[in-house]
Amino acid sequence: MVIILVTGFEPFGEYKTNPSQEIAQNLDKKRINGFKIIGRVIPLRYKEIQSLIHSHIAENDPDIILALGQAPRPSISIERVAINIADVSKIGYNCGSAPKDEKLVEEGPVAYFSTLPIRKIQEYLRKHNIPCYISNSAGTFGCNQIFYYMMNYLEESSRLAKVQAGFIHLPLTPEQVISSPHSANMELQVMKRAIDLIIEYLVQGDKRND
Amino acid sequence: MVIILVTGFEPFGEYKTNPSQEIAQNLDKKRINGFKIIGRVIPLRYKEIQSLIHSHIAENDPDIILALGQAPRPSISIERVAINIADVSKIGYNCGSAPKDEKLVEEGPVAYFSTLPIRKIQEYLRKHNIPCYISNSAGTFGCNQIFYYMMNYLEESSRLAKVQAGFIHLPLTPEQVISSPHSANMELQVMKRAIDLIIEYLVQGDKRND
Amino acid sequence: MVIILVTGFEPFGEYKTNPSQEIAQNLDKKRINGFKIIGRVIPLRYKEIQSLIHSHIAENDPDIILALGQAPRPSISIERVAINIADVSKIGYNCGSAPKDEKLVEEGPVAYFSTLPIRKIQEYLRKHNIPCYISNSAGTFGCNQIFYYMMNYLEESSRLAKVQAGFIHLPLTPEQVISSPHSANMELQVMKRAIDLIIEYLVQGDKRND
Amino acid sequence: MVIILVTGFEPFGEYKTNPSQEIAQNLDKKRINGFKIIGRVIPLRYKEIQSLIHSHIAENDPDIILALGQAPRPSISIERVAINIADVSKIGYNCGSAPKDEKLVEEGPVAYFSTLPIRKIQEYLRKHNIPCYISNSAGTFGCNQIFYYMMNYLEESSRLAKVQAGFIHLPLTPEQVISSPHSANMELQVMKRAIDLIIEYLVQGDKRND
Repeated sequence: MVIILVTGFEPFGEYKTNPSQEIAQNLDKKRINGFKIIGRVIPLRYKEIQSLIHSHIAENDPDIILALGQAPRPSISIERVAINIADVSKIGYNCGSAPKDEKLVEEGPVAYFSTLPIRKIQEYLRKHNIPCYISNSAGTFGCNQIFYYMMNYLEESSRLAKVQAGFIHLPLTPEQVISSPHSANMELQVMKRAIDLIIEYLVQGDKRND
Repeated sequence: MVIILVTGFEPFGEYKTNPSQEIAQNLDKKRINGFKIIGRVIPLRYKEIQSLIHSHIAENDPDIILALGQAPRPSISIERVAINIADVSKIGYNCGSAPKDEKLVEEGPVAYFSTLPIRKIQEYLRKHNIPCYISNSAGTFGCNQIFYYMMNYLEESSRLAKVQAGFIHLPLTPEQVISSPHSANMELQVMKRAIDLIIEYLVQGDKRND
Repeated sequence: MVIILVTGFEPFGEYKTNPSQEIAQNLDKKRINGFKIIGRVIPLRYKEIQSLIHSHIAENDPDIILALGQAPRPSISIERVAINIADVSKIGYNCGSAPKDEKLVEEGPVAYFSTLPIRKIQEYLRKHNIPCYISNSAGTFGCNQIFYYMMNYLEESSRLAKVQAGFIHLPLTPEQVISSPHSANMELQVMKRAIDLIIEYLVQGDKRND
Repeated sequence: MVIILVTGFEPFGEYKTNPSQEIAQNLDKKRINGFKIIGRVIPLRYKEIQSLIHSHIAENDPDIILALGQAPRPSISIERVAINIADVSKIGYNCGSAPKDEKLVEEGPVAYFSTLPIRKIQEYLRKHNIPCYISNSAGTFGCNQIFYYMMNYLEESSRLAKVQAGFIHLPLTPEQVISSPHSANMELQVMKRAIDLIIEYLVQGDKRND
């Protein structure tokens, strides 16, 4: 059976919720066209992320990985690249860590590209009227971190060529910007639909071999 | 019977749709708690706006006026003030007019305040998780223009004290930002709900005399 | 002798400096082409601003008034209009006041237009490569407040027709954004040059009667 | 003798000037503390950039390389990483090329880190009141391209460990934003000073071996 791993993060900073958490939880155990979804929530703790993502991959041996997170951006951003750096300024990890210009993997490569079909995902979402764009930086916080560790583990375990894996940033929700209404936001339902559409596209894509 | 006039604008500039148009059309002839809504669409033609808004007020003698328009802003903005100026830079009126620093009413006052309970509307929308803010400038284009002409006519026809009237700016829709996904946007359904909530609040407010 | 009154504000909020203060102080007692400049610094204290600006006008009987202040905006903004409202959200006055939707003058008009030639000032600054724009809102904090009280006093004292008076917002300085380098800023020297150019234009304008 | 190569780009898109060009030209042949600066201007032509930067490095065998370019960003951005992608949306190369998701070097690594002391440069500029920040994306246009080709060539020619090389993005100038005054900008003199300070820091650094 084909397995899709979806990860989300716990809330962090000033926020009490995180749409990536809710989406990962909701999708857990769902089955679509003979595919099985595993949803997992990752705590935003600097020293725990690497072993957690490794375990989730090792245990489930997924064919597709969608790692999700949140950032105050205007629409859904499909990340192109994960870089070998952790660097935090204002908002720290929930564990209190605040790494400065630290390598995530001491001897690791500078960066990994997403192995998702990012341009086709962008086109598919836009065709369904969901604003999105390809981002060339996943930042240097937890989102980039899980993305890098995930790709690094796929390489180390010789899965890089066969797993479609990447990271998607979700915007703030209306609830999260109620007190700062000049910030862009997106309805949680739209985010959920976006992730459903991405899975739908990848599942179809798998059959179509494109 | 109590009458609510809701106006919207035709699409303008690069856009093929205008949520204010759709909302005004959808609300036309609706009845809520014994209130009757009149929905009217205004063409974005510089020389026609004044007589059209005057006619709509004269014909319907509304108790409440919600004039709606669209602007590329991050969330719903409840306008505080209309000023006696028309000044257009890049995007012109659909008729091609491009007034520069022109007074809307030669001997008119500098400005009118909205007679809507703008702070309470803001609080009511936020309570319902709809991002919004009070704006201190409705611009110097069609939206400010209809707002000023409306308030000026209410004053000239001695209605200013008894009619709750004001202007609400709606953001761009997801469809409108598909090619510029770094722009903030709001689902049309959320905008519709916001206007429904504002009407609900004003209708209740009328009963509560607050 | 022709008199130019230039006012600036004390620093406020998180900032230790205010370029409007420095410019007002530097210009004090300067003479240009037979014009005399009076520079005055105003404390950002809600209840003191009205009487201070009245006194400065009454004592000096200026022909031109340039009220200056600061806002986190991308370039110099030449204000078009002052409105009869004080409304403060996050940053309060230095005295701790935080008025909400309060009228500045209970029976005062809704708004006053600047009597400066704002469009010509914009063109003159741009001709000299200084980025600027005409702003349709001076906010609802101290800057709008001094602007409104100044215009109101000019009207009350029958000076409105003969005094060229208005408000100019200055951006943040490089020093002020060192810890938030994604904010736009402008060199203090450029701001000084901008105010010199505005005075130069108004002085020439006076001679040219344009 | 120690050699510093500084490159800038020709103007592109809507702009008639490019501060990186002017700075590279002005610095050419300057000598500082026994260091010699070579300034070179690169045309923004997709197929020519690789061979040009290779030639400039091969001919001059520099110890330090500062590649400069321009982007509409709020302050000076010190790039951390170059990625193996060319992807252009609206603004194309001056030659008309518009690559989409193309690898710059077919078998090249995903990315290279700058070998400049980027954090120390940031601190040094801020100490001198010049707003700047470390950027985690140099984009996917000409600036990222020259940065990637430069680092790739340094690696291929076994210079990567001994050359301090990186890319700096300069903001728009006041002249460039005169018609769009809501854009952030920086005086050319400040940019020049920033590059002088970076060179000064690197030259000192060389002596201090830090």
